[in-house]
Amino acid sequence: MNKIKVVAFDADDTLWINEPFFREAEQQFCILMEDYLTHQSISQILFKTQVDNLPLYGYGIKGFTLSMIESAEIISKGTLNVKIIDKIVKIGKGLLTKPVELIDDVEAILQELQTKYRLVVATKGDLKDQHRKLHKSGLGSYFHHIEVMTDKEKIDYEKLLLRLDVQPEEFIMIGNSLRSDVLPVLELGGYAVHVPFHTTWLHEHIEHPVIHDNFTSIKKLSEIKGLL
Amino acid sequence: MNKIKVVAFDADDTLWINEPFFREAEQQFCILMEDYLTHQSISQILFKTQVDNLPLYGYGIKGFTLSMIESAEIISKGTLNVKIIDKIVKIGKGLLTKPVELIDDVEAILQELQTKYRLVVATKGDLKDQHRKLHKSGLGSYFHHIEVMTDKEKIDYEKLLLRLDVQPEEFIMIGNSLRSDVLPVLELGGYAVHVPFHTTWLHEHIEHPVIHDNFTSIKKLSEIKGLL
Repeated sequence: MNKIKVVAFDADDTLWINEPFFREAEQQFCILMEDYLTHQSISQILFKTQVDNLPLYGYGIKGFTLSMIESAEIISKGTLNVKIIDKIVKIGKGLLTKPVELIDDVEAILQELQTKYRLVVATKGDLKDQHRKLHKSGLGSYFHHIEVMTDKEKIDYEKLLLRLDVQPEEFIMIGNSLRSDVLPVLELGGYAVHVPFHTTWLHEHIEHPVIHDNFTSIKKLSEIKGLL
Repeated sequence: MNKIKVVAFDADDTLWINEPFFREAEQQFCILMEDYLTHQSISQILFKTQVDNLPLYGYGIKGFTLSMIESAEIISKGTLNVKIIDKIVKIGKGLLTKPVELIDDVEAILQELQTKYRLVVATKGDLKDQHRKLHKSGLGSYFHHIEVMTDKEKIDYEKLLLRLDVQPEEFIMIGNSLRSDVLPVLELGGYAVHVPFHTTWLHEHIEHPVIHDNFTSIKKLSEIKGLL
């Protein structure tokens, strides 16, 4: 780990709170639709619609909103009052204007790390929305590079390392998703740190534990200072 | 112009056809809504909704689809049959799966230019969708760098030049929008070439002609070879 040059951070639920806002929106959606089905069934249909639409829409709030609209039609079998659609659009817009709440003592951590490493944000999601959040967070100046990625597979990290002109052993990724932030980076020969967040989208879950020489799990982001 | 190191191309309606697909979608939307208003009034409401939503949604098909849905509710004053919403969602999905039709003899042009310059794509729009189109176009390998930008203002080009590590006088931008591809680059001290496309979104229109030492207008993309 003494070769590390670049420390990359996932953004949503690593630097700032994200998933709880989506869960809150999903809850509002379930309430809107509860004349038709149980909350559990509504959530299942929404999840399936979202995952089916991922190849087309990618990650982010606009795709999520469109998937809620599509799910509402499936759930109501086309009998929905169109005013509900208006409410769904408003739920989506609400998500796009949420405040940015930093997790743990992020700013102090970045301040300390930036003297020794190049700091990078590597996040999935919507370009516009991620830039909005970074701007609102006030953290922009700590980062040498912001990479909004369409996916976080091994090949996407390969491209990122190429762009940053670093070797895998010079790169460490910190994030809350084992699937997106940890496994592909380890596969590449890089280092990865998992900082679990209390809420993770089902789609990011993996079944098996991760055991690897280049892997560490910490409880709070601030523990990263002791690691590096 | 003899210092040029980087040749940057806009993508939509410069490398491949885009706006006609949006106009076609708008036409379909007008037909769906024609029980309520004239096509012209429908288009005006859609345009206003789109522009109002730009700060929140940014550019791209998902935001366009959400704006069609919102417009449909405004136009019908909340009396719409929800099955129309389903059709609007399908118009949006249709846009996301359109074939990529190259403009002019793009590939031969890139092939020739890449031996002398670093070629770059600098485009607005949705990250996922632009990567899809670039992949489908088969042009990806000609480009040293792909930049999907949330906006194309002067400051966005400044960041791009920093990222590419070039000076303004080493940079030339080629595109179909005077507003997005030409003016901000000239303001920065770079070079710009306008290749008009027969259809341009109203929002990209500017009132005055452009006269500037670093500016050229050409009729077809292939004329760029004679210029450089």
